[in-house]
Amino acid sequence: MVKAGVDLGGTTIKIGLLDEEGSLTKRVIPTESGSGYERIFERISECILSMLEEGGIGLWELGHVGMASPGILSEDGEVILFAANLGFTGVRAAEELKKYFSCPVSLKNDADAAALGEHVYGAGKEYRSTVTITIGTGVGAGIVIDNQIMAGSFHSGGEIGHHIIVSGGRPCTCGQRGCMEQYCSASALVADAKEKSSCYPDSKLAKLYSRGTVNAQDIFEAAAEGDWPAVAAVDGFVRSLGIGVINVINILQPQAVIIGGGVSEAGRALTEPLEAYVKTHILFGEKNFRTHIRCARLGNDAGMIGAALL
Amino acid sequence: MVKAGVDLGGTTIKIGLLDEEGSLTKRVIPTESGSGYERIFERISECILSMLEEGGIGLWELGHVGMASPGILSEDGEVILFAANLGFTGVRAAEELKKYFSCPVSLKNDADAAALGEHVYGAGKEYRSTVTITIGTGVGAGIVIDNQIMAGSFHSGGEIGHHIIVSGGRPCTCGQRGCMEQYCSASALVADAKEKSSCYPDSKLAKLYSRGTVNAQDIFEAAAEGDWPAVAAVDGFVRSLGIGVINVINILQPQAVIIGGGVSEAGRALTEPLEAYVKTHILFGEKNFRTHIRCARLGNDAGMIGAALL
Repeated sequence: MVKAGVDLGGTTIKIGLLDEEGSLTKRVIPTESGSGYERIFERISECILSMLEEGGIGLWELGHVGMASPGILSEDGEVILFAANLGFTGVRAAEELKKYFSCPVSLKNDADAAALGEHVYGAGKEYRSTVTITIGTGVGAGIVIDNQIMAGSFHSGGEIGHHIIVSGGRPCTCGQRGCMEQYCSASALVADAKEKSSCYPDSKLAKLYSRGTVNAQDIFEAAAEGDWPAVAAVDGFVRSLGIGVINVINILQPQAVIIGGGVSEAGRALTEPLEAYVKTHILFGEKNFRTHIRCARLGNDAGMIGAALL
Repeated sequence: MVKAGVDLGGTTIKIGLLDEEGSLTKRVIPTESGSGYERIFERISECILSMLEEGGIGLWELGHVGMASPGILSEDGEVILFAANLGFTGVRAAEELKKYFSCPVSLKNDADAAALGEHVYGAGKEYRSTVTITIGTGVGAGIVIDNQIMAGSFHSGGEIGHHIIVSGGRPCTCGQRGCMEQYCSASALVADAKEKSSCYPDSKLAKLYSRGTVNAQDIFEAAAEGDWPAVAAVDGFVRSLGIGVINVINILQPQAVIIGGGVSEAGRALTEPLEAYVKTHILFGEKNFRTHIRCARLGNDAGMIGAALL
């Protein structure tokens, strides 16, 4: 029996076949969101069918098709109510998949699917309860407690990136103020570092900014060399992320918090100061700090793998 | 079959017998924490045995003895590691209970037990998933998801009162800064109202403070009459509590948030502005606001009832 996982993104669709031994075959196709949802689902099914054929796997051996979708899903998990970057409104995704496949199909929020993938096959392998925080343009998250995704009673919980850590703080795209996402996203780090570098025109960071695009990894590298504005920006980023992680632990107390997204490529340069901050600031202090902090391992495959496992 | 619930407090111990129809017999005895833990457990057992006898219930009909304890419990739920207001350090509570009772015994954090009691027998009756926030001197909380207490992987999660809502804010007794408890406890409300009333010497509230002790209920009453400092204090309290509740919903999305403790006696004077704040500020706005906000119903019995049900 194999399982198919589909990670539906605004630019590309990642499709994977996962066999019983956990080995993965994957393919990436462009989303072409302008072509309309029916054509998109048709192309997804064509891709899965051709992958099965190439692998010499019969359609009857396909046990499940899972889809990870951005945006807001219906409570029954059948409909993509709204996904801005796909141009989808009220798309009956489960129904579309059932047109092509007779096996069970399922649909989940992409952050939840990625958290499940990372929990089962990635950095969360050895734990029963993990929270995965994915840091990119925004801050996504998924909660897995006792090996079950905890998506909330109406399937739109788990929004750790939109919990408020600074009452009355920076305005967020969501309409709130002071959301974690406004302090701990890669975009926030890049913007903070730019602002800080303006006071240090001779710094490495100021020169990087004057030359063009700077990303989170550049800032971590400059900080490792002791470049002042980079150190200050990373320090502020780690403190804000630390508060978010402390809140997650004080409330949910998972066995591990997994940091994913581009920022996690910084590895120990991120997790070491983060762990030090959390350890010294957590409720009841160090003696109560038993949650591990890990970097994600599956990278961009987490959503696709999680979708297959739904 | 009957179940016994023991709510172990610093001043009094509440003991209840709960029968299969859910009817409750209760008794309150003084804790006398100075007498030592062995004597305390002896008196608890004497009380349960005499209640059974008075009810004409045989010891073989006692199916469970549950205890709700303050402080920090061991991971296996057998030992009270530390409870400041009882003077307990490393008390093997489960073992003590087993000296007197052959039925199963269990031990749980008092906030978790109260949340379970409220969930099963109180304001949470009709829901599968609730979060109970108990507002008193501090802010306690218990999370029940799909009818299970979610105490965290190491049994000290659920500490919603110590999640940070104001980064770098007011110092908390726990060592952190900006904990929810520092803005939404009854003590915080009373202190804020006092500070505010000092600018309005002719206000009702200033007069109350000059006469002596003021409690949360007095402040809600003065606010209902339009007394300026009281209105301002209640408004600030509701906004901070609103941020805490929004975070709970954005992360956990229970079907209901239940507000307990003395402050909940304000009833709709509390829940109406709170609901209005949460509705307008929550992620994705009003259309995503499906969590009910309710006042607790069991009052001080919640912990005892929850303990019986463990």
